[in-house]
Amino acid sequence: MLSKNKIKFIKSLEKKKQRLETGLFLAEGNKLVADLLKSFECELLIAQASWMAMQGDLTVKELIVADEKEIEKASLLKNPQDVIAVFVQPHVRLEKNLLEKELSLVLDGIQDPGNFGTIIRLADWFGIKTIICSPDTADVYNPKTVQASMGSIARVNIFYEFLPEWLDELKAFPVYGTFLDGQNIYQEKLSDSGLIIMGNEGNGIRSEVEKRINNRLYIPNFPQGIASTESLNVAVATAITCAEFRRQQVYSI
Amino acid sequence: MLSKNKIKFIKSLEKKKQRLETGLFLAEGNKLVADLLKSFECELLIAQASWMAMQGDLTVKELIVADEKEIEKASLLKNPQDVIAVFVQPHVRLEKNLLEKELSLVLDGIQDPGNFGTIIRLADWFGIKTIICSPDTADVYNPKTVQASMGSIARVNIFYEFLPEWLDELKAFPVYGTFLDGQNIYQEKLSDSGLIIMGNEGNGIRSEVEKRINNRLYIPNFPQGIASTESLNVAVATAITCAEFRRQQVYSI
Repeated sequence: MLSKNKIKFIKSLEKKKQRLETGLFLAEGNKLVADLLKSFECELLIAQASWMAMQGDLTVKELIVADEKEIEKASLLKNPQDVIAVFVQPHVRLEKNLLEKELSLVLDGIQDPGNFGTIIRLADWFGIKTIICSPDTADVYNPKTVQASMGSIARVNIFYEFLPEWLDELKAFPVYGTFLDGQNIYQEKLSDSGLIIMGNEGNGIRSEVEKRINNRLYIPNFPQGIASTESLNVAVATAITCAEFRRQQVYSI
Repeated sequence: MLSKNKIKFIKSLEKKKQRLETGLFLAEGNKLVADLLKSFECELLIAQASWMAMQGDLTVKELIVADEKEIEKASLLKNPQDVIAVFVQPHVRLEKNLLEKELSLVLDGIQDPGNFGTIIRLADWFGIKTIICSPDTADVYNPKTVQASMGSIARVNIFYEFLPEWLDELKAFPVYGTFLDGQNIYQEKLSDSGLIIMGNEGNGIRSEVEKRINNRLYIPNFPQGIASTESLNVAVATAITCAEFRRQQVYSI
């Protein structure tokens, strides 16, 4: 039986303030929750008996078996599935010396939680383990980000930093950004390590952050020079950029 | 003055049935509407005086100057802007003989209007002028699709066809699809023309459609063979695929 208080508690986690205060986050969906249970400490699991029956041993602090209607009441989704879970936000430390050896992403003010989640998922695909975000980037624990990341938040570590100061503290190593007036990404020799900075959906990269970029890249459109749409969605641009870095790393001579 | 009837009429266009019956569609946002006005017949324009003052000559059937509160009432957006427009859906014929010379996209059951709009936008970027969709793909005139396409619906033509039958009628030419067991996209010589089929977010390409594919591609993850997330968002996968087709066309020997 799912009490009104529990429903209220779950719904409250839609708010960032509440997530900050409790250190918890919400995830929904049969596959997503099953995935996250392998990596995150589970505070509360609300599931239909049928879903429960398909799981192996579960380590959860509190388990409530609920029916479809009860789950519907607690869900934030348009089409609720069979399970809702509350997880504990992990504490991970940013290892600065690792950054020098790897390719990492930096997000400067990505607003849309769906875009952010999609970027986390593609970072995971391309073996990027670290994403550093400006404080005004969407919250990684926003339920929509968690949803769009499809479980990749278990493998990609997200940090929030004041980017201009943070970038200044780093030793000199490649800092890339994509711009409409950059160098053609297909004609540049891209590094196997360094930072790729992606900017806000509407305004791009802030000038204080742009100053720290030493490699300006451009994704060419087709046919080149013919005016079409002015820009690409930020998750799409991130994907094409990351794919090209990895292609050059593995497949070019 | 914006009447209740007009507000009701605008809101009704959120429904596909209503859009089909009227042959109209809705667009919101200062930049988007200004862009679409250049390409589509405008049935109704509701705008703040300040926005109107910044436009040149406008050819619209009906023009209503409204204040912020009135626009808020009619808007479908969380953060309404200064203008809402109702446009006439254009009638475009699919020129089959053009398909043989060009690269086109085929969407098999893309559900999410945001993903669909993002794909239209990136198709525009990569000079893809035609997208053929299965009947169960999201509606191109869904307000969320229009929004995410960022004006690219003016340059990319969208058609709905029963894909298995439609694909059978085509002469033999390259039909590509992305799969988890395809050929590495970076190690294949890709054609400058043909079809690229992308499948549903959860289930991929239907088997009846898959049968018509004669080139199975795979976007390699990194490091290759190391398990990470199982797949990429469909807009992201489409972007990486289109980018690689165009890269090979322009930059590889």
